[in-house]
Amino acid sequence: MNHVARLVREHFAGSAEVLKIGDLPVTAIASRYGTPSFVYDRGIMTKRVSQLRAVLRDEIAIYYSAKANPHRSVVAHFVRLGCGVEIASKGEYLRALEARCDPRKIVFAGPGKSEAEIELVLAKGIGELHIESLTELDRISRISRRLGLRASVAVRINPTAEAQGGAMRMGGKPSQFGVDEEGAEAVVARVLECGDVDFTGIHLFTGTQILDPAILLTQYRKAVGIARGLAAHFRRPMKTIDFGGGLGVPYFPHEQELDVAALSKGLDELVREVRADPWLSGARLIVEPGRFLVGEAGIYVMAVSDIKISRGKKFVIVDGGMHHHLAASGNLGQTIKRNYPVALLNRLTEPPCEKVDVVGPLCTPLDTLARDIDLPEARIGDLVGIFQSGAYGLTASPTQFLSHPPPNEIVVEQGRIIDDPALPVGG
Amino acid sequence: MNHVARLVREHFAGSAEVLKIGDLPVTAIASRYGTPSFVYDRGIMTKRVSQLRAVLRDEIAIYYSAKANPHRSVVAHFVRLGCGVEIASKGEYLRALEARCDPRKIVFAGPGKSEAEIELVLAKGIGELHIESLTELDRISRISRRLGLRASVAVRINPTAEAQGGAMRMGGKPSQFGVDEEGAEAVVARVLECGDVDFTGIHLFTGTQILDPAILLTQYRKAVGIARGLAAHFRRPMKTIDFGGGLGVPYFPHEQELDVAALSKGLDELVREVRADPWLSGARLIVEPGRFLVGEAGIYVMAVSDIKISRGKKFVIVDGGMHHHLAASGNLGQTIKRNYPVALLNRLTEPPCEKVDVVGPLCTPLDTLARDIDLPEARIGDLVGIFQSGAYGLTASPTQFLSHPPPNEIVVEQGRIIDDPALPVGG
Repeated sequence: MNHVARLVREHFAGSAEVLKIGDLPVTAIASRYGTPSFVYDRGIMTKRVSQLRAVLRDEIAIYYSAKANPHRSVVAHFVRLGCGVEIASKGEYLRALEARCDPRKIVFAGPGKSEAEIELVLAKGIGELHIESLTELDRISRISRRLGLRASVAVRINPTAEAQGGAMRMGGKPSQFGVDEEGAEAVVARVLECGDVDFTGIHLFTGTQILDPAILLTQYRKAVGIARGLAAHFRRPMKTIDFGGGLGVPYFPHEQELDVAALSKGLDELVREVRADPWLSGARLIVEPGRFLVGEAGIYVMAVSDIKISRGKKFVIVDGGMHHHLAASGNLGQTIKRNYPVALLNRLTEPPCEKVDVVGPLCTPLDTLARDIDLPEARIGDLVGIFQSGAYGLTASPTQFLSHPPPNEIVVEQGRIIDDPALPVGG
Repeated sequence: MNHVARLVREHFAGSAEVLKIGDLPVTAIASRYGTPSFVYDRGIMTKRVSQLRAVLRDEIAIYYSAKANPHRSVVAHFVRLGCGVEIASKGEYLRALEARCDPRKIVFAGPGKSEAEIELVLAKGIGELHIESLTELDRISRISRRLGLRASVAVRINPTAEAQGGAMRMGGKPSQFGVDEEGAEAVVARVLECGDVDFTGIHLFTGTQILDPAILLTQYRKAVGIARGLAAHFRRPMKTIDFGGGLGVPYFPHEQELDVAALSKGLDELVREVRADPWLSGARLIVEPGRFLVGEAGIYVMAVSDIKISRGKKFVIVDGGMHHHLAASGNLGQTIKRNYPVALLNRLTEPPCEKVDVVGPLCTPLDTLARDIDLPEARIGDLVGIFQSGAYGLTASPTQFLSHPPPNEIVVEQGRIIDDPALPVGG
């Protein structure tokens, strides 16, 4: 079974010739809202949260990483499902508040936090700030004193190489993220000496797009090991161990879905270990998935506007492009350009019969959304969909490039459209 | 002399320790408007237009390619200097009108032009539409008939391989752009048969970022050759020969500035040839530079917000990043990540003393703006500038990524700031 067929079977029940997203035919969505559009199904997000919670139980809290998709209805949905929110900017903080997230369930990580950002979140309230450097500690300390409050501060740690893995290795090497594990004791000592903040614990800086449960478990164990070492050294209990994000989704045919059940056994053991350690037993454990919760819930829907053959190659020209979906064009950090799963959404059951390139309307050869993919014979007006587009899609794209209008973003759930930008958050 | 020093000498007169842009100290601009900001100097744009016009004389018209930088003050400036505008979307068309461009001096190229776009430009007026396929001819013909007017149509041609060159080879191969040279006769025949449009000529689909005058001349000769062949075949004079864009600017140390004077001699010869040919003698010749006119006129100005050392490597963390300048991070189609010219703008005369990475505030390792560059020892608050940022900068970047605020765009000219977004266009 090919990748699209697997995704349709798993997430888009009731689809036959026409894809149904959240039980609504995509043709109906497209004729009501036009193309190009991103369609997000909150049902899939709910399913992912439930699935993850079954594994993490009440032991490990889920904080949604807002950068994956900061659409207000998406953030509000995760908040309503009980998730905290991990933010990395003032804009994401305000979005979390707008989504009615309890400020105590917000954590703020990311390099180069500005004075203005720190002041805003401290004044309005926040669970924790995760510092990336001593400069940030000084800033937070100064602003806390000025505001007459005590910030809760965890230290983000860039682990040594043994904890690494995943498509994008983010630690072990020199990095702008976190403080080196080798120097963590000295940084924690400074946090403890500082009279203006409360030390809460650590946040492990991890990889992203990890599909192997063994690698995730290695990272989590690494975090527990670091926390244990620091707690014992300073003879202080840890209040927070943030395992970071990293849970991936399969974009390409050779990738397998993350086996969440396989995480379960290793996690149970790790949690028992944490709860048995006097320094760690009271710690709040956190994971911060983004992509895993929302990546599969989004489809970028475009209409075919032209079809042409050049020197024997067929081009299907669509009304959406890299300006809305940079990652699908292979220009968001990918070293190899592979195709996202793509299909003709109104002709799902037709067998493919030709190889085509799917290209957008921008006047640059970068605007190629799929290369040499097998499709049924496309016609002008057909709907082309890019699956796995819920995370790092629209907001990670150069929307102003060539001055085309922005796409619609349509959120659906169980046969219902949540469509009116004027509706209250979570409407 | 290094690249930054060469650029400063050529374009930023009066700079000493502090860079002056348009005769204004960048420190003054930054303290008035904040960072991160793009600063554009219209003086440099004027100089580039004059330089190019000296070579093209009145024989070849300059059409500014709006996609390079659609800022309204930039487009208005080129219009005021007498340039036409090459557009590729409805948004760019409206921007050209707003800049008071005579609609007859606008040409519209690009794949997948929509019904709505074609209808808008025909109803409001446009010089020419450059078709990329027969589908577009049908659309334009139908809409022309409905509106009771005759559209002027040129055919964009994807030449055979001999005309190629430049950093990004855009023709010769199968492509979504233009119609294959091999099939151009058949397409022109269809345009001529169509009772609703006027055939004007051809537009050569060329490379981009070309720094070798010989390659440009080869392309221009190719265009003249194709035009001559079609004119003779159909026994009709050509009204338009659009040579396309392609004129580059040097981004990296190994690149040399395009030698415009060297273009001159070859062009004189080519123009004589065109004027001597009875089928071509009356043709309007066009070039469509974008990057060449505006690329060097822009600097992305950021402030240092943190400095840290991780595993022996120094990171200078700035308040701007890839969300404003994707190309500088090496993620806009570059196959090799090279550094743009980068400097500490408030300490230009200090010799470099250390190798650092310059990174932005986004919580992703993609947000690296320069790798292992030599800088004087940076301090928090110093201004870091990325040169050559006037084209394909802000609008080619994922501005919503991580929900940071957009940067300011400040246009300067001869000691004056053109700063108020409420001013009339061209103010």
